Amino acid sequence: MRILLINPNTTPAITEAVTRAAAAAVPEAQFVPATGRFGARYIASRAAAAVAAHAALDAYAEHGEGCDAVYLACFGDPGLLALKELASVPVVGMAEASCHLACTLGRRFAIVTGGERWGPMLEEFVAALGLSRRLAGIRTVAPTGAEIARDPDGALGMLAQACRDCAADGAEAVILGGAGLAGLAERIAGVPVPVLCSVAAGARAAAAAATLGPRKAERGSLAPPPPVETVGLSPALAGRMGGGRG
Amino acid sequence: MRILLINPNTTPAITEAVTRAAAAAVPEAQFVPATGRFGARYIASRAAAAVAAHAALDAYAEHGEGCDAVYLACFGDPGLLALKELASVPVVGMAEASCHLACTLGRRFAIVTGGERWGPMLEEFVAALGLSRRLAGIRTVAPTGAEIARDPDGALGMLAQACRDCAADGAEAVILGGAGLAGLAERIAGVPVPVLCSVAAGARAAAAAATLGPRKAERGSLAPPPPVETVGLSPALAGRMGGGRG
Amino acid sequence: MRILLINPNTTPAITEAVTRAAAAAVPEAQFVPATGRFGARYIASRAAAAVAAHAALDAYAEHGEGCDAVYLACFGDPGLLALKELASVPVVGMAEASCHLACTLGRRFAIVTGGERWGPMLEEFVAALGLSRRLAGIRTVAPTGAEIARDPDGALGMLAQACRDCAADGAEAVILGGAGLAGLAERIAGVPVPVLCSVAAGARAAAAAATLGPRKAERGSLAPPPPVETVGLSPALAGRMGGGRG
Amino acid sequence: MRILLINPNTTPAITEAVTRAAAAAVPEAQFVPATGRFGARYIASRAAAAVAAHAALDAYAEHGEGCDAVYLACFGDPGLLALKELASVPVVGMAEASCHLACTLGRRFAIVTGGERWGPMLEEFVAALGLSRRLAGIRTVAPTGAEIARDPDGALGMLAQACRDCAADGAEAVILGGAGLAGLAERIAGVPVPVLCSVAAGARAAAAAATLGPRKAERGSLAPPPPVETVGLSPALAGRMGGGRG
Amino acid sequence: MRILLINPNTTPAITEAVTRAAAAAVPEAQFVPATGRFGARYIASRAAAAVAAHAALDAYAEHGEGCDAVYLACFGDPGLLALKELASVPVVGMAEASCHLACTLGRRFAIVTGGERWGPMLEEFVAALGLSRRLAGIRTVAPTGAEIARDPDGALGMLAQACRDCAADGAEAVILGGAGLAGLAERIAGVPVPVLCSVAAGARAAAAAATLGPRKAERGSLAPPPPVETVGLSPALAGRMGGGRG
Amino acid sequence: MRILLINPNTTPAITEAVTRAAAAAVPEAQFVPATGRFGARYIASRAAAAVAAHAALDAYAEHGEGCDAVYLACFGDPGLLALKELASVPVVGMAEASCHLACTLGRRFAIVTGGERWGPMLEEFVAALGLSRRLAGIRTVAPTGAEIARDPDGALGMLAQACRDCAADGAEAVILGGAGLAGLAERIAGVPVPVLCSVAAGARAAAAAATLGPRKAERGSLAPPPPVETVGLSPALAGRMGGGRG
Repeated sequence: MRILLINPNTTPAITEAVTRAAAAAVPEAQFVPATGRFGARYIASRAAAAVAAHAALDAYAEHGEGCDAVYLACFGDPGLLALKELASVPVVGMAEASCHLACTLGRRFAIVTGGERWGPMLEEFVAALGLSRRLAGIRTVAPTGAEIARDPDGALGMLAQACRDCAADGAEAVILGGAGLAGLAERIAGVPVPVLCSVAAGARAAAAAATLGPRKAERGSLAPPPPVETVGLSPALAGRMGGGRG
Repeated sequence: MRILLINPNTTPAITEAVTRAAAAAVPEAQFVPATGRFGARYIASRAAAAVAAHAALDAYAEHGEGCDAVYLACFGDPGLLALKELASVPVVGMAEASCHLACTLGRRFAIVTGGERWGPMLEEFVAALGLSRRLAGIRTVAPTGAEIARDPDGALGMLAQACRDCAADGAEAVILGGAGLAGLAERIAGVPVPVLCSVAAGARAAAAAATLGPRKAERGSLAPPPPVETVGLSPALAGRMGGGRG
Repeated sequence: MRILLINPNTTPAITEAVTRAAAAAVPEAQFVPATGRFGARYIASRAAAAVAAHAALDAYAEHGEGCDAVYLACFGDPGLLALKELASVPVVGMAEASCHLACTLGRRFAIVTGGERWGPMLEEFVAALGLSRRLAGIRTVAPTGAEIARDPDGALGMLAQACRDCAADGAEAVILGGAGLAGLAERIAGVPVPVLCSVAAGARAAAAAATLGPRKAERGSLAPPPPVETVGLSPALAGRMGGGRG
Repeated sequence: MRILLINPNTTPAITEAVTRAAAAAVPEAQFVPATGRFGARYIASRAAAAVAAHAALDAYAEHGEGCDAVYLACFGDPGLLALKELASVPVVGMAEASCHLACTLGRRFAIVTGGERWGPMLEEFVAALGLSRRLAGIRTVAPTGAEIARDPDGALGMLAQACRDCAADGAEAVILGGAGLAGLAERIAGVPVPVLCSVAAGARAAAAAATLGPRKAERGSLAPPPPVETVGLSPALAGRMGGGRG
Repeated sequence: MRILLINPNTTPAITEAVTRAAAAAVPEAQFVPATGRFGARYIASRAAAAVAAHAALDAYAEHGEGCDAVYLACFGDPGLLALKELASVPVVGMAEASCHLACTLGRRFAIVTGGERWGPMLEEFVAALGLSRRLAGIRTVAPTGAEIARDPDGALGMLAQACRDCAADGAEAVILGGAGLAGLAERIAGVPVPVLCSVAAGARAAAAAATLGPRKAERGSLAPPPPVETVGLSPALAGRMGGGRG
Repeated sequence: MRILLINPNTTPAITEAVTRAAAAAVPEAQFVPATGRFGARYIASRAAAAVAAHAALDAYAEHGEGCDAVYLACFGDPGLLALKELASVPVVGMAEASCHLACTLGRRFAIVTGGERWGPMLEEFVAALGLSRRLAGIRTVAPTGAEIARDPDGALGMLAQACRDCAADGAEAVILGGAGLAGLAERIAGVPVPVLCSVAAGARAAAAAATLGPRKAERGSLAPPPPVETVGLSPALAGRMGGGRG
């Protein structure tokens, strides 16, 4: 089972860390890492996320051949639906998978992540999933995911406190969201409800999708769109969008 | 990995068939089957589902010891939240798991199942999950799941037609729902969107939950409730509800 | 006018107290009391409520003959829709009736009840009624309804405070919910919005339904379901579900 | 028990007919009839309904003294919330009461009424009640309620057909809505779900409110508003709004 | 471009002030002022708003001839849909226009206005627009709009604080709502998000509608209703509702 | 008044046509045209829209200096919120402006556009605006907007029929959506409800925003985000995202 792991920001070190964490969570899968070719070093704004959506498509077009599934490994899932449309194999987003899993663990879930700009963006993401009624809240800590990845020990206390605050607000499960927070969920203590690692949750869901092997839609909004002429894109993406396989 | 598979109706042949299908979907797990001790031979009404919720709790109390997760293997998931509250390990329902998985495969999903009384009951179930906006529709065929299990070949045509009708209505993924329909999803042809087997989807989700091993909630509506004196229940269930382990 | 009053928990003293309060509220009706044969002494968990749904059906099957309506006299209404399906006469739940009445008294209503586990369960109940937008909030006091019934004077102060807090939160009507709180509404002072007694509200609604005498649905999710073979149920319930009259 | 029955249109014959029907439904109450002093002979537009809201307030100010409750006896309830604010006794609207009652009889209800302009107005009314999710649909027949009142026998067939169509669409209860349709519900045959008379439903609810006697809100949006100087209103309404009792 | 500006309360001084502010905001338009003939001096209750809806229709019938659009210049828009139905030219409400404009300036908007009774009324108004999900909150200051109009300098501080509080609650744009607050938006300082003047927003939208000149609906709930005989209305309104032009 | 008009697809001829139509609708404004530097010739898929969001940001960074507002002139508004975040002046999207305007013309609006893949994408867009309840439906005709722009006369009949079908479905206003359909609204005949030109509606709203001149948010999800290092972007966009002005 071969899974393309796309990190749509442009920091290879994060790609490597997420790939390691994904492989640890699903040892039976082979994760093929890909990093965004262009865009922000770290995604913490609507503008950076919009560029990352393009970068994710670009990465898939370049590296998608021969994979059984795609794991869009950025919590917030930039370009998720476009990627599902473009790809011929199942695509799973890190936030998407985490939210659906969290729903099975509690009647309301919360999200804790790094970088305060993510709050409204994730609220909109959860609404687009149709899961607003299941969301107890989103709490962000000041350091971004990238900063947390560089100093996890320094962030552990404030993340744990945020998780406890979520539980006090009525969350019955908490997602520790973000590539940079890989592996921290199991180190969070003193939270009276389940705490999920988004990297592991997404990796597992991607592996499940690869095994399940659902057929590609031939109809509907995720079916392959008609080919279109493009300008100024990478040859691989131009090929994909033009009707070829890149 | 040991998973208690509860069939909350009272027909052991269905328990056996579902257990076989679950084991085929997740070979690495051991499924421990349990059948409802009381209630309807087949669940196709609100009254039968209400009794089955009790039967599911009863089965867990009797057989839950030593399991890593519980798979409530009846599409419609009678007693799901009560079981999540009572059990000390993760509980996954067949319909719950299928609906969340289907959401990752299409922007709207549909359900095809046997027995027309399930239509409104499943609509309410999906609403309780908070997923109404993702639901394209529910189509029931006249034979119940039990009848389909006895003559799958005879039902295949009408199930396929129902799936195609769902796709024509805008569903981008279709769940073939019901214990009695185990294994039929892969035999459905001519549907232009992914078709999911609910038995396999639920089995896989239960196995994932068992591996993930989230801690039991100590707070919130799924935490263990205070012990309560009971009357007229099985010793195991009375023990569980009375604060013991049965 | 003969109304079957079902207390689905297993404490006859509560049945008696509720019956007295119902009779006081609707002197022109005859309330026929029935107590759950099995289950928890007091319902304060999802598991106890699930068992109580079965017990309510069982009680109706045993005692329903010759009644003009059924009053499911437990605030939270376990088994309400199943009972509406099974019964040949109108069924009214205590919480259902109270919520609909409260909607006519204020743009948003609140619920005050005993036992903190009821909070999320009632929130889900109100959502299932479709009335979430009308709900200002739910406040629970620590003692359960059963405990309040044993010492109403001791609970009056904290109940009144909870009602006032609801009004401060924007509730324009407050339901004092629970069999154990029968008769306390009129003793609550200092609340600047109407306070409803759930026992009286439900009794009145049941009487109105009995008088109105709507025909039994022959179609839809509350019509009589097809008969089904059962195992291990009381003869009366087995008879009802098997297509007979018990 | 004295109930002010306000017909906010300006046709006394309708007031008389509704009063007769209300009295038949609730023999123990005394209904005091009041007809709108100004506005449309029959309400079948947004403009006519807006004027009728004023006329209802005017009628209450003139005739409300000494009543135990107010029955706003026009299906669509023009001025309902303003009347609840202004009046010192409980106010019940015909459509409001019917919709809440219908919710207890089926998971989805429908409305059948006369005059096609009422369709969207009632849809908005049900949405304002917060009950849109419970509404299966609204069907209007071409003749207005006034026309039906003049020739009920001629309308019976098309009303019955509309009710059957609602049931076919999934309604589990149907409200026959409108003052002009008083008494027709029991003459409708061949509908497989309960059919409610809105006039009787409202009368009964008004009587229940009168008996229950909830205190007037002192806080919130239905509490008495601060007195205000007015221009050009009837002395009674000017008095009411100016802080007096008219 | 000639725009009928209706102030549906009965205080001509407010009409004059709003007309001046509207003219300042849209110098290219001619605003024709009209004041309510009857009703409250200032609208701060449901009852006053209900009467004002009638007064707005009355004013349009009297003064609407020859106008290109109607500006219903009372924040809360009493009679808005009835006026849209009755009028043969586009009608724009002050609150309606402000809310839609605010949606383009921030993902969530708030409203700050004078008179605490407006809180729930505006919440219902926004819900009727379908914009509840976009609403961050409503804050009212104690003085009514009329009082603020008499002493704007005295109110400026508390209005600015209310705006800042809204931003702190997550509002990304704030509407300063009310005829009496005309011109104050630009004097509010220290609010970190855009602050809109409702009078200017509405005036501009009315002018845009006049220029755009959309055809009058011939179908649907805003098309001209069938003529109806009336009683006790002004000749102009009776003429309009009776099918004439007044 | 200088408005940057961004056409985020890569066909200059469409940019020219939209600019002409915008200028005709708002003669007092100067529209500065900009065409996407990369991406699809025409946007008719999720993938093309995702790339166009990046291209819109890129165009703003390159050409935004000195403008009073931005008009994102592609119906579907790719990158709308990211652009609102990035830009220091107000940004108005063509679909956003059209939907809000349509809400003031009818209680439910519909959209008619070219290219069937737009159906679900626009449905999601309207949901993100929070306006789903106001949407009567979306109808697409087979030719894309680009094809319609090349042969408007050939498309007029089918567009008019689609508009009439929308009105028959209950729409009270219809948006003719898409850059390629500029100018066709006024040529559509026989539709009994208002028909809006999306190009004109957006142009007018952009001009209004430019005149109004709301301050840039300093707080919330549309405030300028913290600068971030980027890779592989145009110097102008890298400068903007890096904290400069490009």
